[in-house]
Amino acid sequence: MRTGTWLIGARGSVAVTSMIGALAIRAGLTAPTGCVLETPALRERVRPGIGDLVFGGHDVTSVPLEKKAAELAGSGVVPAALALAVKDDLAAVEQQVRPLPAAATQAETARAIAADLDRFRRDHGLDRVVVINVSTTEPVPPPHPAHASLQALRTALSGPQPGSLSGSLSGSQPGPQTGPRTGPPPGVEPVLPPSSLAAYAALSAGCPYVDFTPSTGARLPALDELAREQGLPYAGHDGKTGETLVKSVLAPMFAQRNLKVRTWSGINLLGGGDGANLARPGANAAKSASKQRVLPETLGYLPQGETRIDYLEDLGDFKTAWDLVTFEGFLGTGMRMEFTWHGCDSALAAPLVLDLARLTAAAHRAGRSGPLPELAFFFKDPLGEVPHGLAGQWQTLCDLVTDLATALGQEPTP
Amino acid sequence: MRTGTWLIGARGSVAVTSMIGALAIRAGLTAPTGCVLETPALRERVRPGIGDLVFGGHDVTSVPLEKKAAELAGSGVVPAALALAVKDDLAAVEQQVRPLPAAATQAETARAIAADLDRFRRDHGLDRVVVINVSTTEPVPPPHPAHASLQALRTALSGPQPGSLSGSLSGSQPGPQTGPRTGPPPGVEPVLPPSSLAAYAALSAGCPYVDFTPSTGARLPALDELAREQGLPYAGHDGKTGETLVKSVLAPMFAQRNLKVRTWSGINLLGGGDGANLARPGANAAKSASKQRVLPETLGYLPQGETRIDYLEDLGDFKTAWDLVTFEGFLGTGMRMEFTWHGCDSALAAPLVLDLARLTAAAHRAGRSGPLPELAFFFKDPLGEVPHGLAGQWQTLCDLVTDLATALGQEPTP
Amino acid sequence: MRTGTWLIGARGSVAVTSMIGALAIRAGLTAPTGCVLETPALRERVRPGIGDLVFGGHDVTSVPLEKKAAELAGSGVVPAALALAVKDDLAAVEQQVRPLPAAATQAETARAIAADLDRFRRDHGLDRVVVINVSTTEPVPPPHPAHASLQALRTALSGPQPGSLSGSLSGSQPGPQTGPRTGPPPGVEPVLPPSSLAAYAALSAGCPYVDFTPSTGARLPALDELAREQGLPYAGHDGKTGETLVKSVLAPMFAQRNLKVRTWSGINLLGGGDGANLARPGANAAKSASKQRVLPETLGYLPQGETRIDYLEDLGDFKTAWDLVTFEGFLGTGMRMEFTWHGCDSALAAPLVLDLARLTAAAHRAGRSGPLPELAFFFKDPLGEVPHGLAGQWQTLCDLVTDLATALGQEPTP
Amino acid sequence: MRTGTWLIGARGSVAVTSMIGALAIRAGLTAPTGCVLETPALRERVRPGIGDLVFGGHDVTSVPLEKKAAELAGSGVVPAALALAVKDDLAAVEQQVRPLPAAATQAETARAIAADLDRFRRDHGLDRVVVINVSTTEPVPPPHPAHASLQALRTALSGPQPGSLSGSLSGSQPGPQTGPRTGPPPGVEPVLPPSSLAAYAALSAGCPYVDFTPSTGARLPALDELAREQGLPYAGHDGKTGETLVKSVLAPMFAQRNLKVRTWSGINLLGGGDGANLARPGANAAKSASKQRVLPETLGYLPQGETRIDYLEDLGDFKTAWDLVTFEGFLGTGMRMEFTWHGCDSALAAPLVLDLARLTAAAHRAGRSGPLPELAFFFKDPLGEVPHGLAGQWQTLCDLVTDLATALGQEPTP
Ligand SMILES: NC(=O)c1ccc[n+]([C@@H]2O[C@H](COP(=O)([O-])OP(=O)(O)OC[C@H]3O[C@@H](n4cnc5c(N)ncnc54)[C@H](O)[C@@H]3O)[C@@H](O)[C@H]2O)c1
Ligand SMILES: NC(=O)c1ccc[n+]([C@@H]2O[C@H](COP(=O)([O-])OP(=O)(O)OC[C@H]3O[C@@H](n4cnc5c(N)ncnc54)[C@H](O)[C@@H]3O)[C@@H](O)[C@H]2O)c1
Ligand SMILES: NC(=O)c1ccc[n+]([C@@H]2O[C@H](COP(=O)([O-])OP(=O)(O)OC[C@H]3O[C@@H](n4cnc5c(N)ncnc54)[C@H](O)[C@@H]3O)[C@@H](O)[C@H]2O)c1
Ligand SMILES: NC(=O)c1ccc[n+]([C@@H]2O[C@H](COP(=O)([O-])OP(=O)(O)OC[C@H]3O[C@@H](n4cnc5c(N)ncnc54)[C@H](O)[C@@H]3O)[C@@H](O)[C@H]2O)c1
Ligand code: NA
Ligand code: NA
Repeated sequence: MRTGTWLIGARGSVAVTSMIGALAIRAGLTAPTGCVLETPALRERVRPGIGDLVFGGHDVTSVPLEKKAAELAGSGVVPAALALAVKDDLAAVEQQVRPLPAAATQAETARAIAADLDRFRRDHGLDRVVVINVSTTEPVPPPHPAHASLQALRTALSGPQPGSLSGSLSGSQPGPQTGPRTGPPPGVEPVLPPSSLAAYAALSAGCPYVDFTPSTGARLPALDELAREQGLPYAGHDGKTGETLVKSVLAPMFAQRNLKVRTWSGINLLGGGDGANLARPGANAAKSASKQRVLPETLGYLPQGETRIDYLEDLGDFKTAWDLVTFEGFLGTGMRMEFTWHGCDSALAAPLVLDLARLTAAAHRAGRSGPLPELAFFFKDPLGEVPHGLAGQWQTLCDLVTDLATALGQEPTP
Repeated sequence: MRTGTWLIGARGSVAVTSMIGALAIRAGLTAPTGCVLETPALRERVRPGIGDLVFGGHDVTSVPLEKKAAELAGSGVVPAALALAVKDDLAAVEQQVRPLPAAATQAETARAIAADLDRFRRDHGLDRVVVINVSTTEPVPPPHPAHASLQALRTALSGPQPGSLSGSLSGSQPGPQTGPRTGPPPGVEPVLPPSSLAAYAALSAGCPYVDFTPSTGARLPALDELAREQGLPYAGHDGKTGETLVKSVLAPMFAQRNLKVRTWSGINLLGGGDGANLARPGANAAKSASKQRVLPETLGYLPQGETRIDYLEDLGDFKTAWDLVTFEGFLGTGMRMEFTWHGCDSALAAPLVLDLARLTAAAHRAGRSGPLPELAFFFKDPLGEVPHGLAGQWQTLCDLVTDLATALGQEPTP
Repeated sequence: MRTGTWLIGARGSVAVTSMIGALAIRAGLTAPTGCVLETPALRERVRPGIGDLVFGGHDVTSVPLEKKAAELAGSGVVPAALALAVKDDLAAVEQQVRPLPAAATQAETARAIAADLDRFRRDHGLDRVVVINVSTTEPVPPPHPAHASLQALRTALSGPQPGSLSGSLSGSQPGPQTGPRTGPPPGVEPVLPPSSLAAYAALSAGCPYVDFTPSTGARLPALDELAREQGLPYAGHDGKTGETLVKSVLAPMFAQRNLKVRTWSGINLLGGGDGANLARPGANAAKSASKQRVLPETLGYLPQGETRIDYLEDLGDFKTAWDLVTFEGFLGTGMRMEFTWHGCDSALAAPLVLDLARLTAAAHRAGRSGPLPELAFFFKDPLGEVPHGLAGQWQTLCDLVTDLATALGQEPTP
Repeated sequence: MRTGTWLIGARGSVAVTSMIGALAIRAGLTAPTGCVLETPALRERVRPGIGDLVFGGHDVTSVPLEKKAAELAGSGVVPAALALAVKDDLAAVEQQVRPLPAAATQAETARAIAADLDRFRRDHGLDRVVVINVSTTEPVPPPHPAHASLQALRTALSGPQPGSLSGSLSGSQPGPQTGPRTGPPPGVEPVLPPSSLAAYAALSAGCPYVDFTPSTGARLPALDELAREQGLPYAGHDGKTGETLVKSVLAPMFAQRNLKVRTWSGINLLGGGDGANLARPGANAAKSASKQRVLPETLGYLPQGETRIDYLEDLGDFKTAWDLVTFEGFLGTGMRMEFTWHGCDSALAAPLVLDLARLTAAAHRAGRSGPLPELAFFFKDPLGEVPHGLAGQWQTLCDLVTDLATALGQEPTP
C-alpha cells in the first residue's frame, strides 16, 4: 500500500507543509486537522492512509527543504518544534527531490521526467505514484492545434520545433522562480505549458495526475486521450481553500432562499511566493477566472462585481479576503452581507494535497480512468458536469468514498 | 383551493409585510423574491399558490393594518408605492383581524379563538385554515404537570384555576404590547402560555398550526396528542432569517473540511418591535437558546462563545449581526473569519410565512399529521431528528415537495 | 450679504443635493446636519449664512433639476417629502442653470462663461459669486508650456490653436456625459482642461474658485498668477467625504502611538454617475492618486498597499469602502485593523459645498487672495504646506474662522 | 538618572512584556516600536530614557518571571528569541519582585509596602521610584467616609477595624489570583481597595503613582491631599490601547463633520488573564464604564448602544473588538461604519508603561505634584478637565514634554 506522492513544485510552501504534516502525523506528533478524509464521516475508509505516503518531486529551485521548513516556521505556518521533530525524515525526502529536467525538445524533457518517476517507484517499491502539481501558477497558454489529439501532440513534441518545460513560464517576463532555459528562442511558445508537459510525462509513466493549480495540466483533449489509453485517472483544478470555499456555501444559501444577489465583489490580499506570482497579470487572470465560476454555476446568473487579487509582501503567508454581497429580498428590499477571511493558505492547502493523493491512488487502484469529477469538493474550477455548491460536492465525495471502498473490498487501514 | 392564513400577531411587522407582499404578488405588482417555493427548483409544484391565500388573524393591539403599512413604508421595509397600491385589498383583510379573545378560563378563551377560526373558514368558503404564530416572543413558561397529557390538559384548562391568554406574557413585567387582563391573579401562572393556548385552540378547530417564533406553541406532549387525534400537522420553531441562516451553511463547511472551530461569538443589534421585546431578559433567553443550537448539531461539539442580542431603537427594522469564528487548521495554525449581516428581518421573514402556509396546507391535504420535521429548512430550532446544515434541510424540503406532489396528484397550479 | 454659488456640474448629484438642502434649511424644514460651519464650535461665526446663498451654474447635460431631484429621492439620498417641499424654489434655481458655453477658441469660451457669471451677479444684485466645480472628474491633462505663466496662457488661449472646454474630457473615450464639440480636431489636446478653463473664466470675472474634484482647476502657475492679480482666493482639491476622511484620523493615531503601519489597502465600491465616470481609467487614476496622499504625509512613510475603486451600478448612490491596515507593535508583534464605511457620497459632499461657498466668500470679503490652505479640512488633496491629519486641519480651520471674524468685524449673522 | 519602575502586578502579562521590552531595547536587540516618547516628534526629549529604568514590583502570585516570559513567547506576544536573549537580565529583575505584604491592619500593610520601596531605592541607588499599577482590575469599592480626608483616612487605616490588601478583591467571589488573607472577616470591606492602599503606600514613601488599570488607585480626596502634601505627582486611569483608542479619533471626526451619531455599539472578545478577570461582573462593569466615557465627552451627547466584554479563553492574548457606528448625515440620510480591531493587548500596553514611567519621573523631577492631566493621551478615563479627543491629548502631551524639557534644562539623553 506504499504510495508515491510526487510533487511538481516540491520546494514550495504547499509542498513542504504537506510533507512536514504527513511526517508529523505519521509520527503521532499532531492531529490530522484539515484532512477531509479524517473527518468522522470518512475516517478509516480510504487506503492508502496518510502514513502510507512517500514523498518526492521536481522543482526548478534548489533551496533545501530544511531551509523552506525554517521559513515556514518563522512565519507561523508550521510550529517550530514540529519542524525540528521531523528534521531527519525531511532530510530523507530531500534525497527524492530532483531538479526539473530540461532537454532540447519537449519530448525528451518528458522522457526525462518519466524516468525520474520510474526510478522513484522502483527505488521505494511503491505500488503506484500520484503526481500532483503544486508549482507556480502559469498564465493561460495560447491555443495550439496539437492540443486536440494525442497523435498530433506526439508529433509536435518530437518534431523539430524546440520546446522547454519552463519556456512558457519564463518566456516573456521573468518570474520569481525561473527554470532552466534550453527551450525555444524568445518569442516562440513551446507546444505545452509546463503543467501539461508534466501531466504528459506522468501519464506516459503510468502515474495518475492531479492539478492543484489553475494551470492547464491534463485539461487538453490530447491528454484526456492519453489518460484513457493508459487507464489512468486525473483531477483538478485549483485547490479551493479560502474565499471561493466560503462562496460555495453562501451562494447556494442565497439561491435556495430565492434572494437575488445584485453584486458580489471581493478582494484578496496576500503575500508569500504564490502572491508574488499572482501579482503578474497572466497568472492573476488565470486565478481570478477560476475564482468566479462558482457564482453563475450556483446562482444561475452572474451578479455584478469582480474578484481582485493584490500582492502585499508584508502579509507573509497569511491571506485576507474581503467580500461584499448586496442582495434583494421580499418586495425589493436591499440588504447586504460582508465577510472577512483571514487564513493561512499553505495550512489550508496542504491537508487537501494529502487527501487528493490518497483518493486518486484509491481510484487508480479501483480501475478508474479519465477525469475524476467526484473530487469537485477540493477544487475551485472542477472538471466535468458537477455540483458547484459545497454541499452537493460533499455528497458526491462521500458517495465516491463508498464506491471505492466497495470496489476495493473494504479492507481495514493497516 | 382557497386557503386561510390566520396570523396570531396579525398587526405586527412580519404579519403585515406578509399580507402586503401576498396581495402585491397576486396583483402582479412585484416578483416573489424571497419565497422559497418560487425558486426555479420548486416553482409551480405546491398548491395552494400565493394567490390562493386568504388572510385573517388575532392581535392584542388595535393599530390599523393601514397605519402599520405606512410605518413599514416609512422605514423602508415596504415600498411606499406598493403599500398604496394594495390599500383596498388590505382594508378587506382588516375586516378579518379580530381582537384576541380573553375569557374567565383558558378553556373558554380557547373556545372563543376556535369560534373565530370557524367563522373565518365558513365566511370565506375556505378549504382549510392554517394558523401561524408571528406574535411577540414569550419567555419560556414554567413547567406544568398538565402539559404531559391531553386529558390532564383538558381538565386543567377547564378547572377552577383561572387562566388568560396573555397572562404569562404580561404577568411580571409589562411588555410593549399587552393583551386583555382577565386571567389569573398576579403571580399565578396560567396553565398554557399564549402560544400554546393558540395551538390548542387551532388544533381543536381542525386547523394545522405553525410557530414562527421561539415560543412553546404546539411543542408539548399534550398538544402533540391533540394534533394526532385530530389528524393535523404542526411545525416550528423560530423562523431562520439571518445570522443563524448563515451559521447553518458555514458550520457544515468547517465540519466537512475538518477545521476545528475554537470560538464562535456573535452579536445581533436590532430595533423594531421584535427588538424591543427581545431586550426583555426572558424573551432574549428564549431566542438566544434557539440561535445557538445549530453549532453543536453540525460541528459535533460546542465551540466557546455566545450569541448576544442588543436592542437599539434607532436601528429601526434593520438588523446588523456580526460573528467572529476562530478556527484551527493543519498543524494547529490559527485562522479566523468574521461576517456582518445587515438585513431587514420582516422582509426576510414574510416570504417564509407564505411558504409555510402553503406547505402546511398541502401537507394537511395530503393527510399528514403530527410534526413536520421536513420543514427544518425554515427554522432555527426545528422539530424532530433532522439535519441542521442548510443543505441537508434543503434536500429534505425538496423531497417533501416531491412527495406531496405525488400524493396530491400533481395538478398544475391554476 | 447675498452670495452667488455658481456650480460647474449644476445638474449632478452633489450639486442638486446641495441646492435642495440649502433651500430646505432656509425654509426651516430640516437641520443643517453635516454642515461644518453649523457645529457648536463654529455656529453663527461665518457670514454669509446658508440662507444667503443664491444658486446658479453650468452643465453639459440638460436633464431638469426636478428630474434629478426625483432620482435622488428615489434612491434614498433626499427624503421625497423634502424634494416636494422645495419644488418651487428649485424651479427658480432651474432658471439660473445654463448650458456650458462652447466657442471656437478657449479664449472665447472663457469669455462666454465669464459673461454668464456677470449676468448672474447683476441680475440678482449679489455681493459676490463663488464658483465651485462639482462636475465630472477629468483625467490628468498632458503638461502644456502655457500653463507656466499667465502671459503665455493668454496667448495660447487666443492664438490660432483651436480649443474646446470639453475636448480633453471627450477626446479619446466618450464619457457618460459629453459636452459640445467645437474644439480641436481629434487627437489635439486643448490648452486647458475644462476645470482649468472654468477657473480661468471665474477668476477673470472676479469670482473666487473652489475645486471639489480632483481635476486640475486653478492648480497651475498661470492661474495662481491670475488669482493674485485679481485679488481672488481659490481652494481645492477633491472633497474628503469617506475612506480618506477616516484615514486622516487613523493614520495620525498610528503615528502618534509609534505603531508601524506595514500595509494599508482599500477598495471602494460605488455606483452613481461619479462611479460610472471613475470606472474610466484616466479619472480613476486621478482619484486614486488623490486618495493615497494622506498616508505618507501623516505617517512619514508609505506603507505597502493600494486603494482601488470599482464601479458597481447596482450600488446606486451609496458607497462601501473597506480598508485593511496591518501594523507592528512592541517587539514586532503583528496586529490588524479593518473598517467598512457605508456612506451616501452626495449626502456627505453637499453640506461641505455649502461650507466652502460661505468660507470662500468670507475670505474674499476679508481681502484674501491666492490659495486658501486653511481649507485643507475639506479636501483629500489640499493646496499648500498644510497638516494632513484631520485634527490639525480642524485647528487650522477654527483659526481661519476666528481670523475672518476679526477681520470682518464680528457682525452677527442676520 | 537611574529610575525605579515598581510594578504592582509585576508577574502579569503587561508587566513582564514591559520588562522584556525595556531590557531588549537597552541591549539594542529591538526597536522601541509602540513607545510614544520614541516617535520622531518626541524622541530624545524626555529623561530618563528607556535604558535608565530599573524594574521591581509586587505580586500576589509567585509564578517566576521566566515562566511567564515563556508563556508570552508561546502565545506570540514576545518573540521566543528575544525572551531567550534577555534571560539573564530578567533573572536579575526576578530578585526585585516581592510578594505583596499583608499585615493585620491596612496601616501596617502600607508600611510594609513602603519599606519594600525604600529598600529598592536604596539598594540600587535610584534617583526616584515610580510605582505603576498593572495588577488585576478591581470591582468598584463601596464608598467609605474615610476616603474624604487624609486625616480621616489615617485614623481609619490604623484603627481597630481590620483591613487586608486583598480583601476587597477576594471577598465575595474568588478570582483568578487571590492574595494573602489576613484581613477582615468575610463580608467586612477594608477601608481601601488594594490599588488605593498601594497608592497610599507609594505616596507615603515619596514615590509618584500611576494607575494603568480602571481601579480606584489615587483617585480619592484623601490620597490627592497626601500627594500634594508630599509634593508628588500621580496619573491614571486605564491604559488606552484598543477600541477606546480608535473611538478617541473617530468620535471627534464625526463631531467636527457635524454628523449625528445615532448608535455606537461594541463588543470586545478577549482571552488572557485580564480577560478571565474581566469576565467577573464587578471588574467588567468597572472596565465598561471606563470605555464609554469618550463618546459623550467628544460628541457632546451619548448615542444609543453599549460596549460589551466577553471572555473567550481560546483567544489567548489577542483581542478582537468590533464596533458598529450608525450615523445621520445631510437631510437625515442614514449611514454606517464598522471596524474590527485585532490587537495584542500586552504588546499595546507595555510600551506605554515605559512612557509613563519616564514622563512621571520627569514630572516629579520638575517639581510637579498632584494629578497629571497632561497624560490623558495614555488613558481611557483620564484625570481632570482634559480633551478627550486623541488629537487634543496629543497636543497637550507635546506641550508637557516641552515644558518639562525647559524646566529640566534640556540636557541631552546620555
Ligand atoms: N495555498 C493555497 O491555498 C492554494 C490554493 C489553490 C492553489 N494553489 C496553488 O498552488 C501552487 C503552489 O502554491 P505555493 O504557495 O506553494 O507557491 P510557492 O511559490 O511557495 O511554490 C511554488 C513552487 O513551484 C516551483 N516551480 C515553479 N515553476 C516550476 C516548474 N515549472 N516546475 C516545477 N516547479 C516549479 C517554485 O520554484 C516553487 O518552489 C500555486 O500555483 C498556487 O496558486 C495554492
Ligand atoms: N422577523 C424575523 O426575521 C423573525 C425571525 C424569527 C422569528 N421571528 C418572530 O416573529 C415574531 C413577530 O416579529 P415582528 O417583528 O412581527 O414583531 P412585532 O412586535 O412587530 O409584532 C408582534 C405582534 O404580536 C402581537 N401580539 C403580542 N402578544 C400577542 C398575543 N398574545 N396574541 C396575539 N398577538 C399578540 C403584537 O401586538 C404585535 O402586533 C416575533 O416573535 C419574532 O421573534 C421573527
Ligand atoms: N460625492 C462625493 O463624496 C465627492 C467627493 C469628492 C469629490 N467628488 C467629485 O464631485 C464631482 C461630482 O460628483 P457627482 O456625484 O455629483 O457626479 P455626477 O456625475 O452626478 O455629476 C457631475 C455633473 O457634471 C456635469 N458635467 C460633466 N462635464 C462637465 C463640464 N465639462 N462642465 C460642466 N458640467 C459638466 C455632468 O453632466 C453631471 O451633471 C465628481 O468629480 C466627484 O469625483 C464627489
Ligand atoms: N493590556 C492592556 O491593553 C490593558 C489596557 C488597559 C488596562 N489594562 C489593565 O492592566 C492590568 C494588567 O493586565 P494584564 O493583562 O497584565 O493582566 P494579568 O492578569 O496578566 O496580570 C495581573 C497581575 O496582577 C497580579 N495581582 C492581582 N492582584 C494583585 C494585587 N492585589 N497586588 C499585586 N498584584 C496583583 C496577578 O497575580 C497578575 O500577575 C489589568 O487590570 C488590565 O485591565 C491592560
Ligand atoms: Na469586518
Ligand atoms: Na466588516
